Amino acid sequence: MNSIENYQNFINTEIENLSLPKEPIQLYEPITYFLGLGGKKMRPVLTLMACEVFNSDFTIAKEAALAVELFHNFSLIHDDIMDEAPLRRGHETVHEKWNSNVGILSGDALLIIAYQKIATYKPALIGELLPLFNQTALEVCEGQQLDMDFESRNNVAIDEYLHMIKFKTAVLLGCSLQMGAIIGGSNSKDAQELYNFGVNLGLAFQLQDDILDVYADQNKFGKQVGGDIIANKKTYLLLKAYEDANSIQTERLNQLAEEKDTTTKVNGVKSVYTELDIKTKAELKMNYFYEIALANLEAISISSSKKQPLLDLAHFLMGRDQ
Amino acid sequence: MNSIENYQNFINTEIENLSLPKEPIQLYEPITYFLGLGGKKMRPVLTLMACEVFNSDFTIAKEAALAVELFHNFSLIHDDIMDEAPLRRGHETVHEKWNSNVGILSGDALLIIAYQKIATYKPALIGELLPLFNQTALEVCEGQQLDMDFESRNNVAIDEYLHMIKFKTAVLLGCSLQMGAIIGGSNSKDAQELYNFGVNLGLAFQLQDDILDVYADQNKFGKQVGGDIIANKKTYLLLKAYEDANSIQTERLNQLAEEKDTTTKVNGVKSVYTELDIKTKAELKMNYFYEIALANLEAISISSSKKQPLLDLAHFLMGRDQ
Repeated sequence: MNSIENYQNFINTEIENLSLPKEPIQLYEPITYFLGLGGKKMRPVLTLMACEVFNSDFTIAKEAALAVELFHNFSLIHDDIMDEAPLRRGHETVHEKWNSNVGILSGDALLIIAYQKIATYKPALIGELLPLFNQTALEVCEGQQLDMDFESRNNVAIDEYLHMIKFKTAVLLGCSLQMGAIIGGSNSKDAQELYNFGVNLGLAFQLQDDILDVYADQNKFGKQVGGDIIANKKTYLLLKAYEDANSIQTERLNQLAEEKDTTTKVNGVKSVYTELDIKTKAELKMNYFYEIALANLEAISISSSKKQPLLDLAHFLMGRDQ
Repeated sequence: MNSIENYQNFINTEIENLSLPKEPIQLYEPITYFLGLGGKKMRPVLTLMACEVFNSDFTIAKEAALAVELFHNFSLIHDDIMDEAPLRRGHETVHEKWNSNVGILSGDALLIIAYQKIATYKPALIGELLPLFNQTALEVCEGQQLDMDFESRNNVAIDEYLHMIKFKTAVLLGCSLQMGAIIGGSNSKDAQELYNFGVNLGLAFQLQDDILDVYADQNKFGKQVGGDIIANKKTYLLLKAYEDANSIQTERLNQLAEEKDTTTKVNGVKSVYTELDIKTKAELKMNYFYEIALANLEAISISSSKKQPLLDLAHFLMGRDQ
């Protein structure tokens, strides 16, 4: 049994040892740069952990763990272009450090290299992994498209939002786990339960992110508290507030969306949230998905001790490890 | 045995029947639009033909044929963004009709859908097809990067240019053929010969394209004759001219690169080409690759009649069918 940190160290070493081609420099240097920016490596850790639930040797899932991490970084490089994001993990994004063309093409190459990792397995395994990976990859694209679509829509329903975050974020966690389980030799029912565990954990995690953006302690939060409010981002909290608001509160939210003074804006939206008890409602929804995730894990036909690392990781991700 | 047109009709029908998801509209509509712009469908035709060399039923290569065509269109959509091209096959490019973000994301989705087509085969076949497809896809990215790198370099060697067009264009023809051969049940030596046939035919075809851009009859040529000269494009002809030029001719070429009057520019460069006999030298190189391609085809251990459609296609592509 390994600690989260052990798995992270393992995957970080593997990423350092990737030995990408050196040329063309403009194609491969941005990939090496971006992969070196850090990050928690949660997706590959999930793959390795899921494998170890069913197999004493988690290293057989190494290439699949790399595949999900490389895919994740491909999607970040392209998303950063689309979102015009200047920074990622505190460093310049690829399109900012080089240009958009470099971001597009090195992202493409990274996606293909992820598929090369899948192709390292024996055919019977590839036959199981590839359709899952394809389906997930396409859903992640759909999630990103929906997220962009929502920016210019003002009638986004809560269910649509949950569908979007499921595709944009949660399914890749599910896929990471299911691939590890398949490689570890799991039966298909357990592999599916692990997929569901990942999806529900991902949904809970994203809702927690929405909540923290408004209510986190600024000293402990990596981003600007209130950033989503300032950017008029359609989070679960804002959509729920619109759903529950009376006509006066709706009008206040509409006016606050145009407010230029950020302190007035953040405090104004928070006061509407307080009136409507939005924080509690968001926490209820978050806990709903978290409880389902734990039930998915519970349903897997393997001893509790084998599943403990995944439970620890869930606690860790949801800030419940203290 | 089928005519080129039969294969084209078959693949066009399959593309029309792709039944992509309808939503998100902004993700899938651009794909349907772009796939509907026409084109000769040479790559999937190669896949189907190669399959039929070894198997009476070419339709078993349908999904692989779709994969190479979808991949080709993915690369065109992204290349068009990078090259800021307004038109493709006489119609607006995706980033022009929508915007760059739509081009990036729908291109990504198209690449993934290509992989979904590969994933429809039985595991043993996927195990052979996927590494070949991955390797080719990555080489196409490298070729595009080299092509962009060359724009800002003024010391590109002929060998570098040939390497670039091999990766950017020729390897996908080779891959299209090899995948068809594998699915048709070819032995690995013959599949490799067909790959080489495709690569060498692709090199000859690209050199022909460079020649036609300068020497085609404008009435029969789809693009502007002299377009490469006007754009200072580093074609085989220009690079060979620089290689063979004396210091006076080099200076003339350098001055012509700055010339604003397009007629003066095209006529000036053509007169240097004439002095150096560049057209003949380019045709010699083109014929060199074409002859190797024909030898590759000849080496395949199957009756001439089975190989006739591929020979016909080679003649057709090289304008030697009249």
